[in-house]
Amino acid sequence: MIFGTDDARHPGVSHFYGLAEYFVGGTVELRERVALEFSAYEKTPAETRAYFATMGWRTVVGFQTRNAPHRAHEYLQKAALELCDGLLIQPLVGRKKPGDFNPAAILTGYEALIRNYYPAERAVLTVLSTVMRYAGPREAVFHAIVRRNYGCTHFIVGRDHAGVDGFYDKYAAHRYSESFGPDELGITILRMRGPYLCLKCESITTDKTCPHGDADPTYSFPISGTAIRKMLEEAAEIDTRVIRAEVVEAIRRLPRPFITE
Amino acid sequence: MIFGTDDARHPGVSHFYGLAEYFVGGTVELRERVALEFSAYEKTPAETRAYFATMGWRTVVGFQTRNAPHRAHEYLQKAALELCDGLLIQPLVGRKKPGDFNPAAILTGYEALIRNYYPAERAVLTVLSTVMRYAGPREAVFHAIVRRNYGCTHFIVGRDHAGVDGFYDKYAAHRYSESFGPDELGITILRMRGPYLCLKCESITTDKTCPHGDADPTYSFPISGTAIRKMLEEAAEIDTRVIRAEVVEAIRRLPRPFITE
Repeated sequence: MIFGTDDARHPGVSHFYGLAEYFVGGTVELRERVALEFSAYEKTPAETRAYFATMGWRTVVGFQTRNAPHRAHEYLQKAALELCDGLLIQPLVGRKKPGDFNPAAILTGYEALIRNYYPAERAVLTVLSTVMRYAGPREAVFHAIVRRNYGCTHFIVGRDHAGVDGFYDKYAAHRYSESFGPDELGITILRMRGPYLCLKCESITTDKTCPHGDADPTYSFPISGTAIRKMLEEAAEIDTRVIRAEVVEAIRRLPRPFITE
Repeated sequence: MIFGTDDARHPGVSHFYGLAEYFVGGTVELRERVALEFSAYEKTPAETRAYFATMGWRTVVGFQTRNAPHRAHEYLQKAALELCDGLLIQPLVGRKKPGDFNPAAILTGYEALIRNYYPAERAVLTVLSTVMRYAGPREAVFHAIVRRNYGCTHFIVGRDHAGVDGFYDKYAAHRYSESFGPDELGITILRMRGPYLCLKCESITTDKTCPHGDADPTYSFPISGTAIRKMLEEAAEIDTRVIRAEVVEAIRRLPRPFITE
């Protein structure tokens, strides 16, 4: 099973059930490149590979996202970037579910983040136009293979990658990705834990490098999508420990940060 | 040349010049293990390898040091640990130069750091009994090979690794380590930049992941050995942004943190 479940409450399963009765297979050929709202951010695999070569990046870590960036994302990307030459941030734009970030919010947020907090010669932002399947582990590996095709040598699989509503164990994608041999995927998967702000360490960290969150949950200050959303929607004070002020300010200027229908 | 210089002001060169006239070569055999002051912290390569296996660590990053730990060291170790299963912190104890940390200070400092800030199941502290040559790039690669023998799969080479008094360019060891093929050393070298506290990022970072330090040095708050030393020797207030209070407190209790003669 693609989704590991046939529960129709799963958005991928429900979408699949809503399709017509037949699937057509065969060789796929590109007849015409469709112009999309965010085509300006699109680079083909040949273009990203050429860009990496121009920049002299021999190792490039790819980051998949469907969220506006908060400091947990920044932590994962920067930890990986300390050990790689370059970073490809490639948000997925395409059909997603209500409540997800609009692509404009994700791109605006990342532009603000990169402009203010990343060395220009180390990070590049492009989009991947496809749909989210919310297929968890299998989609995590699919996401990695796609980024290999774009020229990445490494790919971050984090907590509950491509998961939805608790349908998958939060590290099921780590385990599934380990079932492939080291050279089988053609890309190195970086299995990273879910970051939180540790009030004892006084920094963003994970349960792999910090002992406090597991021992005493009061130390662990979660950086949750829900909290971030609240900060974006309301005129509340920005907690810069969890999200950069420049990111919030840029997104707040947009009329509609979230998918509503 | 081992040291890349014959300048007698270099402590390794000067020590070498002070040796007798003949060297003896041949097969080396261990007749008897000498008891040293810090033998309790010593594990043989067979023992560390067995320990890594017991812990289920398939990838282990080795960290060489001759200093008490401050937060820049912690940053490097934890960034690498996010991508490896385990961490071997292996301070070098043996002849060093006046002004260097005494082994007791390094070990006491690391014990305090690990006990308070590292998951017990991810980090182990042992010592390497040998002398510092201060041979920069060549010693960095030597340090890596030694840690490969202890079972490490990865090894951190930082800023001015095994350097002294500006004799080597701060990233000469990175370049030298790159002159070896990927499988030639049997260990993956993690070439990491020198961390600083960025007042704009509000975190420890490096010029690889933060754009501010290079653009405007006032953002970059250096975490220097000199500043740390001052904090340890005087009863000054501890700046926990650069060193953990528990580390300072543990070392302050020692009669003699630095080598004096």
